[in-house]
Parts: sequence; C-alpha cells; structure tokens
Amino acid sequence: MIMIRRIGSYTVCFGESPVIVGYGAAVGKREAEGPLGKEFEKVFYDSRAGQKTWEKAEARFQQEAFMSAMEKAGVRSEDIDYIFAGDLLNQIISSSYSMRSFGIPYLGQYGACSTIAQGLIMAAFAVGGGAARTAGVVTSSHFCTAERQYRYPLEYGGVRPQTSQWTVTGAGSAIISQSGTGVKIRHATVGRITDMGVTDLNNMGAAMAPAAAGTLKEYFRDTGTDGNDYDAVFTGDLGQVGTDIFLELMSDEGYDLKRKHMDCGLMIYDRSTQDVHAGGSGCGCGASVLCGKLLPDLLSGKLHNILFMATGALMSPTSSQQGESIPSIAHLVNLTSD
Amino acid sequence: MIMIRRIGSYTVCFGESPVIVGYGAAVGKREAEGPLGKEFEKVFYDSRAGQKTWEKAEARFQQEAFMSAMEKAGVRSEDIDYIFAGDLLNQIISSSYSMRSFGIPYLGQYGACSTIAQGLIMAAFAVGGGAARTAGVVTSSHFCTAERQYRYPLEYGGVRPQTSQWTVTGAGSAIISQSGTGVKIRHATVGRITDMGVTDLNNMGAAMAPAAAGTLKEYFRDTGTDGNDYDAVFTGDLGQVGTDIFLELMSDEGYDLKRKHMDCGLMIYDRSTQDVHAGGSGCGCGASVLCGKLLPDLLSGKLHNILFMATGALMSPTSSQQGESIPSIAHLVNLTSD
Repeated sequence: MIMIRRIGSYTVCFGESPVIVGYGAAVGKREAEGPLGKEFEKVFYDSRAGQKTWEKAEARFQQEAFMSAMEKAGVRSEDIDYIFAGDLLNQIISSSYSMRSFGIPYLGQYGACSTIAQGLIMAAFAVGGGAARTAGVVTSSHFCTAERQYRYPLEYGGVRPQTSQWTVTGAGSAIISQSGTGVKIRHATVGRITDMGVTDLNNMGAAMAPAAAGTLKEYFRDTGTDGNDYDAVFTGDLGQVGTDIFLELMSDEGYDLKRKHMDCGLMIYDRSTQDVHAGGSGCGCGASVLCGKLLPDLLSGKLHNILFMATGALMSPTSSQQGESIPSIAHLVNLTSD
Repeated sequence: MIMIRRIGSYTVCFGESPVIVGYGAAVGKREAEGPLGKEFEKVFYDSRAGQKTWEKAEARFQQEAFMSAMEKAGVRSEDIDYIFAGDLLNQIISSSYSMRSFGIPYLGQYGACSTIAQGLIMAAFAVGGGAARTAGVVTSSHFCTAERQYRYPLEYGGVRPQTSQWTVTGAGSAIISQSGTGVKIRHATVGRITDMGVTDLNNMGAAMAPAAAGTLKEYFRDTGTDGNDYDAVFTGDLGQVGTDIFLELMSDEGYDLKRKHMDCGLMIYDRSTQDVHAGGSGCGCGASVLCGKLLPDLLSGKLHNILFMATGALMSPTSSQQGESIPSIAHLVNLTSD
C-alpha cells in the first residue's frame, strides 16, 4: 500500500511513489521543426491529421500519445482504471471524443495549460491512495482549434502582438502505476488561483507568472528545499515575457533560478527562426515536452530530480469580453529517476 | 488512515469512509417555486443575483452554496486542502471566478452535469487516500448562461421541443473530511463514456440514459447488490424522456427500479405547473437536490442508504455543429447515514 502524506501547508509526499511506467507525445509540423523535433515519436505534418475537422484532429493527437504511452507501459486499455484527460476546447471535447472509444472510466480535468500537471497529480492521488492500480493522463492543444476559439478565425489573419504566445499543436500522455520501472512522482503541490489583474489576452505569460512563483515558493517552504536541490525547474508555458517576470518574482523572494529554470514554451520552438512571438503555450505544450523530452531524459540519466510546474490561465473569451481579468494557476510535481 | 479498496471491475470501497461534514445549496426563483422550494436555504429571486452579468451571478450562487457548506462543517477556507469545482460554461469560468477569492488549492473538474458526483469522488479519493484532511466540492449551472451558450440568445425566444430540459439555476456544495459527523461515502463507481449515436441537442436525456444504465449495472455487479438493497436510486438529470429509457434499459437487464428510482431533474420542478418540458438539467440540478434535499434527508433519518448517480452529456455546440453525436457519462456514489 502506497501512503500519501501531507508536508507543510500545500504539499503532499508520496511514500512509495507512484511510478510513470509509460509516456508518449504526438506533435504537429511546427513543433517537429523546432529544437525538440527529433524527440517526438509521432508527428502529423497535416494539421488535420487526416480528419475532417481540427477538433477531430486534436482528438487524434491525444489518441496517438495515449496509445504510445500504453505501449511503453505494456498495458492495454482494460488495465487502466481511470483516465484523467483535458484540453482547452469548450467542454473539453478533444478529450471526450478521443477517449470515447477506449471504454476506460473517464474523469475530465480542466486547468487550462496546467492540466497535464493536474492530471498527473489526480492520477498520483488515485494510484497512491489505492483507488487505482493504474491510471492514465492525457492532455492536448491545437493551434487551429485554440486560435479560432480564443481569438479570431484563422482566415482573418489577425496580427498578434509580440507578447502573445503560439499554441502548441500536440499532446502528451503518461501511464501511472503502483509499481514498476520508471520515473517516480515524489511530491506534488496543487496551486491556488492567483489574479493580479492582467486583462490582456495576448499576454498570458504575465498573467500566469505570479501563480507559478506562488506555487514554487510554497513548495520550497513546505519541503525546505530550493533550486539548488534540483537539476532543473521547468515551467509549462510562461514564454519569454512570463519567464522574465517569474524569475524576478522568485529573485525578490531570495531564490535565484536563472541557471536552473527552463520553460517548455521556450524549449519547443526556436524563436529566432520560428515566428512564435513570446513562445509556445497550450495544454499540449508542457505535456508534449514532458512526455517527449523530460521523462526520457530522466530515464536515460541526463536528469535525476526535477520540478515540473505547468501553468494555466483560467479565463474564457466570454469573461474577457465582460472585462474580467485573468485568473491563473500553477500545479507542481517533483519527478525523480531513482 | 482511511483505506480505499477496489471491488469488482469498476467500483471502489472506502473503508473508514470519508464523511460529508457540511453541505449547502443556492437556487433561483423557478427552483424556489418548485416542489423542493422550501428545502433550499438560499434563494436569489433576481437571476443576476445582484451582479452585472449572468456569468458572475452563477459564480455568486457557487459562493453562497460553498459558504453555507463551510458554515455547517464548522471550517474556514484555510482548513480546506483542495476544492474540486466545475460547471457547464466554456473553460468552467463560473468555478474559477467563484473560487478566485478563497485561496484554496483548486482543481477544476469537467463532467458536464455529472460533475457533482465526479467532484465527490475526487474529494473522496483525496481524503480517503491521505492527500487531504478536508476537501470541498462545488458545482453550478444557470439557465441564462447555459441557454445562450448552448442554444440561442434568450432574446430570440426560440421554441423548444418537449424533449428538451430546463437548465437549473443553482449550485450545490459539500465538504468532505477524514472524520466527523455526517453522511458517509461508502462506494463509488466512475463511469465510462457511452455514445449511442444520439445527435439531438434537445434530447439530452435519451443520450445520457444508456450511460446511467451502464454505470449502475457495473455497480450492482461489482457489489453484488440490486435496487432492493437501497432506499432509493437517484439520477442527476435524465428528465422524463431519459428516465423512461433508463428504466427500460435496467428492466432489460433484470433490474426493476420503477419503485426505487427518482430523478433530480423531475424532483426539482412540477412539470404540470412549471413549463420546463422534460424536466431539469445542469451541473446545478443534481448538486442542488443532493445538497438541499438528499443529504438533509439522510441526516434526519428519512433516508439511510442511497445511490446518487449524476449524468453528463459531454458534447459542445462546436462538436454538434460538426455533426458529432453526444458522448455521455454517469458517475455513482453510494451514500449512507450510519
């Protein structure tokens, strides 16, 4: 029996940790052309992935990532007790449509771009607490579905300011089990909603940075650690603007993370050659980088002990049109290879 | 330490069960005028609940229900380790905006109208497994926000067919703790996505009924029980059309539930005097009936051992416009007063 224990105010420690026994990522053309291109096992060069609509394509990305994760884990869908799935679309339809055919007990999650970390934590709760032997997580985003839902029809060709981020077309999936070989989930900190009053839909990084700083500070306090205790601290999709703010906020609290921090939104694209403005974002950003790059690096020994913190902006076009600011959140997991 | 144990294929049993130590419901005018009107402690006769928009009003309903639940539980927001919240709106903004001010670690849930049961199960996993000492759940819906998002602007005055259901304006909230006095969560069954090909957005009950029947059959099989072992079996919002199909599907499997089954969507309105067509629906339907009527009846001894199964239709207007059918789901909890 795995035991979950609370430490400090906001963090939980998994005794005999849940193990990530399989993982998979699927991305689109632009992501394949980026610096991590060779890391992703499945690439769809057609943005519709052979489907009639982009929404169906996004579901297809999820299915590919999930099937790849199941294959590595050596499990079939009937071995998985729960699937935690989420995406950015209204009513998270990419998830419900992608998971419709698998027959796995389904629990839809919504934390915007933080959903991959939220799903990992939910799966770790289920597996660590005994409710599941094995659980899966899958999240996705798609530039074409997100852009027309959140901003403008693609055909309109709206010009985006330099603070805006490019929604990653991709998905990531992980299988978490009570035992087995793989990366372990050691600690988790669930974030609180933070809203500093940012209303600019084209500057999500600025809205999310305080949430990321808040969660990381709580985690450091709860565990009595700092950046030096980890190989690296990865954020999900702060982009360049958010990263600058995040590092400054952490510095104000006495944590110098300049040489420890990397952002998945800055890792996935080459901003000097790819026109993505402030960097990548989306449920598929942190998910595909985690499942395409970070988990393999932990398994191969390139990394040993990392913090992975996915960030999310919890507004909708409706709330923005009503003048509301952007509530943000960040969830953290500590992943180790020993 | 509470232990969670799996029984059968899809059901979990909570050893020393998580306890619902507080609950609250807030509803609108039409719900207050219905048969359960006197049961709801908080009523807003103004559909905007004093707010500028219906979306903000829906968040206000959530806050009222949640504060009432905290008061009964005798806890403050800082005592709550996680809040599981959800609603029907795009990006579940009612939840993120309602919970923004409480500073509680936040985990957004999406299971359409099944979200109250999903949230209870997530809270029971967290509390039962040791990740939380106390967790909260809150879900809501609002006729005016749902109607304009899913169907037509209210001003258009579209005529609705008799199979359509009326979205409940209301919210329900519960506080779940490792110990204390209250209703206990004994078992839970997470549903699988079921899609029988129904495409009619005005007939959600028909789409959801097979999911409800599927989950209940699994639960009966896993636990070796049937309807006679319970005081009653409550579904969330099948309405009249869905109820008829559900009872027939269960009868086909050898379970006669005619005298045991009640639907929250049929309990909350009087269809003979209130023009709600096939009955109530929405994340706030099952939630407000559970937290306004069923939990008090369990505490007072009117009920002792019930099944509460909330049902959800997982489509979006976008998927429907693209010709997709309606994936549905039902999650079940067994609640007892001993």
